[in-house]
Amino acid sequence: MDEKLIKDINFIVEIDKMKSIYRRTEVINEKKREDDAQHSWHIAIMAMVLHEYCDEEIDLLKTIKMLLIHDLVEIYAGDTFCYDKIANGDKKDREKIAAEKIFGLLEEDKGEEFKALWEEFEAMETPEARFSASMDRLQPMLNNYNNGGGTWKEYSVPKEDIYKRIEPVKYSSKKLWEFVLYMLEDAQKKGYIIKD
Amino acid sequence: MDEKLIKDINFIVEIDKMKSIYRRTEVINEKKREDDAQHSWHIAIMAMVLHEYCDEEIDLLKTIKMLLIHDLVEIYAGDTFCYDKIANGDKKDREKIAAEKIFGLLEEDKGEEFKALWEEFEAMETPEARFSASMDRLQPMLNNYNNGGGTWKEYSVPKEDIYKRIEPVKYSSKKLWEFVLYMLEDAQKKGYIIKD
Ligand SMILES: [Ca+2]
Repeated sequence: MDEKLIKDINFIVEIDKMKSIYRRTEVINEKKREDDAQHSWHIAIMAMVLHEYCDEEIDLLKTIKMLLIHDLVEIYAGDTFCYDKIANGDKKDREKIAAEKIFGLLEEDKGEEFKALWEEFEAMETPEARFSASMDRLQPMLNNYNNGGGTWKEYSVPKEDIYKRIEPVKYSSKKLWEFVLYMLEDAQKKGYIIKD
Repeated sequence: MDEKLIKDINFIVEIDKMKSIYRRTEVINEKKREDDAQHSWHIAIMAMVLHEYCDEEIDLLKTIKMLLIHDLVEIYAGDTFCYDKIANGDKKDREKIAAEKIFGLLEEDKGEEFKALWEEFEAMETPEARFSASMDRLQPMLNNYNNGGGTWKEYSVPKEDIYKRIEPVKYSSKKLWEFVLYMLEDAQKKGYIIKD
């Protein structure tokens, strides 16, 4: 059996664990938290649907690849709640070690390609990374909005933290930013965002 | 607010339901069934990892798009267990109605593009559709193999049904087919496939 193919299969089996890495966000109208596999699938489709609103020229294949793999490091580093300032302190270090481990399962060429995509996503400096960040941040907000506040309410997240979190959209798509502002204002009116 | 964008957002919210459409296959080493969102994510990454072994020229972006959306019809038609011959009798009709409903949520251009991708997947006549079918069928087999037999054992699936189900791989990738034969022979030796 081809040794490289065996490595690829082992990687594919290992990432099955993403289906049990739970995030704080809940599935809409279901009393259960979503996991990283579901989240990654959702934002990849969002990119398919919403890329036409991106103000910058983006490579859609590269964007979708980035979205599909961006959370793989959480298999070893765990999900860090985005509004938890303490846990976010050492997130970068924990995820860097995890990246070596997960992408190191693959043969060098593919492992390097995937790691580079993850690093590009993290740096948020290219049009694809900015748009990917926008999808990654918009999806849990859509779920919170449709869950009567979700984690915003559950953890009393301050309004300014929410606006800061969603800001990448502003630099990627004027149209989506307009929508975000509309949704967040409405969320406040409805009492979904309670801490000013 | 842009009417088209509102439709897109409604579609994105609606497909959150994929996270609660359960399949028969279980997550590896977890006593829980996987859902359509997790499954679709897994096979999209599999395409990223394994497309190099495809014997035919394929458009990877088109393949991944196809994989991400191929099960959306199950939001209304439900998951049909692949080895259930009775339920598979009216599957095509149920899914056709579901396709009109889910893709009809989108503006005509995008709705038509997505529906065409789904139809191409179903017809299994293009290189991208053959490779997508291979990913779709290989993933639950990898999970069964790593779960000590999984649904093969639980439902006493006859060996010939398993080989028939995985056959698309043969016409898409010699290398992956070699691996499939190796895995299934080993599964039999280990007693994971019990019905001859
Ligand atoms: Ca994350």
